[in-house]
Formats: sequence, C-alpha cells, structure tokens
Amino acid sequence: MKDLLIGVDIGGTTIKHGIITKEGTLIDKWEIDTDITNHGENVPYDIWNSIKTRLTDLQIGYDRLIGIGVGAPGFIDPISGVVAIAVNIGWHDFNLKEILENLSNLPVYIDNDANIAALGENWKGSGQLVSNMLAVTLGTGVGGGIIANGQILTGTNGTGAEIGHMTVIPENGYHCNCGRTGCLETIASATGFVRVAKQWIEEGKADSLKVRLQEQGNLSTKDIFEIARSGDESTNQLIEYILDHLGLALANLAVTLNPAKIVIGGGVSKAGEQLSKPLQKSFDKYALPRAKEACEIVIADLGNDAGIFGGAFLALQKS
Amino acid sequence: MKDLLIGVDIGGTTIKHGIITKEGTLIDKWEIDTDITNHGENVPYDIWNSIKTRLTDLQIGYDRLIGIGVGAPGFIDPISGVVAIAVNIGWHDFNLKEILENLSNLPVYIDNDANIAALGENWKGSGQLVSNMLAVTLGTGVGGGIIANGQILTGTNGTGAEIGHMTVIPENGYHCNCGRTGCLETIASATGFVRVAKQWIEEGKADSLKVRLQEQGNLSTKDIFEIARSGDESTNQLIEYILDHLGLALANLAVTLNPAKIVIGGGVSKAGEQLSKPLQKSFDKYALPRAKEACEIVIADLGNDAGIFGGAFLALQKS
Repeated sequence: MKDLLIGVDIGGTTIKHGIITKEGTLIDKWEIDTDITNHGENVPYDIWNSIKTRLTDLQIGYDRLIGIGVGAPGFIDPISGVVAIAVNIGWHDFNLKEILENLSNLPVYIDNDANIAALGENWKGSGQLVSNMLAVTLGTGVGGGIIANGQILTGTNGTGAEIGHMTVIPENGYHCNCGRTGCLETIASATGFVRVAKQWIEEGKADSLKVRLQEQGNLSTKDIFEIARSGDESTNQLIEYILDHLGLALANLAVTLNPAKIVIGGGVSKAGEQLSKPLQKSFDKYALPRAKEACEIVIADLGNDAGIFGGAFLALQKS
Repeated sequence: MKDLLIGVDIGGTTIKHGIITKEGTLIDKWEIDTDITNHGENVPYDIWNSIKTRLTDLQIGYDRLIGIGVGAPGFIDPISGVVAIAVNIGWHDFNLKEILENLSNLPVYIDNDANIAALGENWKGSGQLVSNMLAVTLGTGVGGGIIANGQILTGTNGTGAEIGHMTVIPENGYHCNCGRTGCLETIASATGFVRVAKQWIEEGKADSLKVRLQEQGNLSTKDIFEIARSGDESTNQLIEYILDHLGLALANLAVTLNPAKIVIGGGVSKAGEQLSKPLQKSFDKYALPRAKEACEIVIADLGNDAGIFGGAFLALQKS
C-alpha cells in the first residue's frame, strides 16, 4: 500500500529530508550537506542515495512511496521541473525533476523553497489548510509564498510571491540586491532592520542603538528588539517605522489575495508580540475593513521543518 | 447533446445575457432592465423568464444547456452562491444561486462581476487563456479580477482582487467611498483623474484645465486626455503623476501574482497609448526585471461583453 511521502528541502548549505505519512505524521527526518562543487550536479544523486540508505535502515519498502516533493532555491518552472537559476547552488536551467525521477522511478514535484514552506505551514502549521494564505519569511531577505484556491501560486516564470521585491519606498529608497531601490526586503528583513538602525544612528536619532553598536562593534535585529523591550523610545519608533511599511504591503496584499491567514516566519518572527502588535496596528490602518475581518496574522509553527512538510504535501496533492 | 452555455452579467441598471457555445461562439445576446424594487427580489425570476423566452424564440431545447454562469455586483461566496452585500441592487445575504437553480433546474455558478469579466477576457479577449492574469478596470471606480492557476481568485470572503482599495498614498490621501484614504481608486479611476485635476487647478498648477473647467462648468477624463494630446505640459504631468501610482501598484502585483498579462479595461482605457505608454514606463521602473519580462500590459478586447463570456466560461470550467 502506498502510504508514505518524501519531502526534500534544498538549501545552499544543507538539504533536509523527511519521510511523512499521508496524514502528515513525520516518520523520520535527516540532513546532508549540499555539495555545490561541479555546479551542483551531484545534488540529485546525493539526495536519492541518502533516501535509499534511510529507507533500508528503516526497513521501508519502495512500494510504499507515493512520490517526492522538493523545495529548491531560485526560479522554477513547476511543470517542467527545471530550475532556471539558483545562484547559491550553481544551477542554471538544471532539470532537477527529470534527473530525480530517473533515479528514483517515482513521481517528483518541484517548486520554489519559499512556496513549498508556505504549503507546509498551510498543511500542518499555522495555516490550518485555509484555501487562501500568504506566508511571509523575515530572514536575511524577505520571502513569500502564496496559497490561492488551495494551490501554490508559482506564477508565469516562477516569480510569484516575490513580495520582498515589492517597492515600498518609491523615492530615495535603499539599494536592493535585485539592482533596484526601495524593495520591502531592504528594510523589513533582518539585514534591513540593521540597515535602517545604522541610518538612524548616523542621523543622531538612535542614541541607545549607537551605544550598543560602539560597545559590540556590530548590531543585530536581536539587539534592536532587546533595546526596544527595555523601553527605549527611539528604538520602538524605529520598529514602528519599519513595520508601518510591512503592514502597508501586507494590507495591499490582503485586498488582492484576500487570505484567511498571513503566516509570519523567519528569524525576525522570533520577536513575537514585539513584532506582531505594531504590525497588526499598521495592517489594520491600511487594510480594507472587509479584507481585515477575514484575515488573521499569525506566527509560523513549523520552523525549519516547513519545507519537508510542504514537499510531502505537494507530492500528495499532485499524485 | 449539451453544447451551450448561458452567461449573465448583472448590473445596477441592466442585466446582460448571452448564449454561447462551448467553443466560445456567441449565438445571441440581449439585455433587460434591472428591477431594483422590493430589494431586488425579482431579479432571478426576470433573468430566467428572459432566458426561457429567448430559448423558445430561437427554438433551442433546454437539454442543450450545460449551465448558467453569473457575474453579480458585491461580495459573493462562490461556493454557497450567496451575495453578502450588493448595495446597488438591494441584496443582503441573497441566495442567488439557489433561487436560479430551483427555477432553471440547471447548475448555476456565481462570482463577482469584476472577476467574471476578467475570466471572460481570459477566455476570449486579450487574456488569451494565460494561466496567470490580472484584469484592471478603470471606470467610475477601479476594479480588479485575478486569474491564478487558471481559476478566479475570489478569496476568503469575496474581497480578492479589490485592487481599487490598495493604499497608494499612505499619508494625506484623498477620501475614498470605503471610509479610508489614499486608495488607488481615489486617483486612478475616471472620477479620480478629475479629482486630482481639480486639486491641481486649485493649486494653480493646471491652467489649461482651469480654462476648460470654466468654459464647460465641468471636467471629464476625456477632457484631460484631449488637452494632454494637444501638448499641454502640465496636463501631461498630471497624467504621469496618476499613472506613476497605478504603475507602482501594478508592479507590486506583478511580483506577487507574476501574471503573463495585465489587461486594462474600463472607460479610461479608451485613452489607448496616452494611457499605456506612461503606464508601461512607470511599471518598468518599479517592477522586478524577471516579473516584468514575463508580463505584457494590454488593453481589454471584449468591452461590455466580457461579463457574459466570463459567466459562460465559469459554467464550462465548473461543470
């Protein structure tokens, strides 16, 4: 009887794997290092070898496997399963789906890692299987994943849900890695918080942060939230300033996607209520009341496991 | 053999009907007045009576009908087919689907009129059946319709694609009918163009428009585009100012929905290149290059027939 799914989450440093039942119970999970030598060509072979070894160890027969769902970085065509560009790994027009299918003799389904993580949160995390959901990851950058009518919205060329590149400061914004200026991720990512803090320090608007920077020689988002928690007014204003832009972007997405849940994940989400309270306030200010009524902003549940659950659920949905 | 679809487009003044083949050939179309007396309770009876009469006239048997697809104003739950609120007609929690199904003994599918018009453009208009599409209607207000993975994105409580209520002027924006300020439709609708023009006249920034207003006693979007066409610099600046906001909103939607087409319709779209050229310029400035590459901005094709085609296609998709 086919009852098991394999979820795979490929990152630039490690590759996470999970064996998960159709009902969503995690049987086993493990990681391997990502081999980025030789333009990442070994990656699918490493993945399949590690799955084979683990199945043997667990005495699980191949005949129980429904399929493999994979989250990979970069821009992906989910139908062909070709990764157009994944800079961190070295892939360029890399036919990940075909290679893994030939190796495993199983159906393989692929999508962008942020989309797959969103699907995982939708299935077994804070998303609670709502039909319309937006996942936002506040990490080094700002990532996004959209579930529309119960399905991942990958878009025309894999650029769906790239909400980190919504322009939120139309004039004189910070420079973004994408080559433009004013993108959401230039201010609302972990690096963005620090970037804005440093500017406020330069402008003489953030003395407590200046002291911390001088003491430590560096500054982190954690420092910013810690100093704010101590009651420092200017640091709280800094957080409000940033979250006002994020709240505006999410409100504009709420009248577009009309989600039942906006799930916030990534390192910055560890700030908990320090993040969610001012964010909710800004969201409420900018969102159409009817869209706001339908939508709850929640913190992600699954952490680093979101990708393997999402991969597994993609395989279940598509098979 | 079942080979025909009925598309219905309910407006506050008239109701449009079409008999359309599965392949999308229009067999016949007609309109009736919308009876808004008695809180619009007669509307489904009027619709079915007019369809029966027309089928009899055309000697088409009921056994050829696949189903009825309806676009209605207001917020709609497409599963129950209940219209939550449709102010223009007087409906409040009105079970349009159930009543029409009981009358016709046919499957009836319902969605918001703007969404249905988008689906019509997608099927037989400028949308050319791309899987991901955004339709924007620049009329009295600004409406929207989203096709995501080939399906209408209605959202959690029928507020999907309400892009007229994206906040584009976060501070000191114009008042909107929705009770908030700074919504896209306060400036980019036909009424919005005139609103901004009148402010520029007050501020002494639009002399040619002021002369036209004094001559006529009023001002229209058509006047604005006409004066711009004559080469008037400040009026062209006014158009660029407005379209800069619209282009920013569409660019932010392009990195979210990653559509292959953005289809612009409504009265303002009659300005043709005077609209599309500055809009494309602004869109190009704000859009992530990869999202821009995938996306073509085009003018809508079907005009007032978009709704009946969309209704028919919805019935085809769902049946």
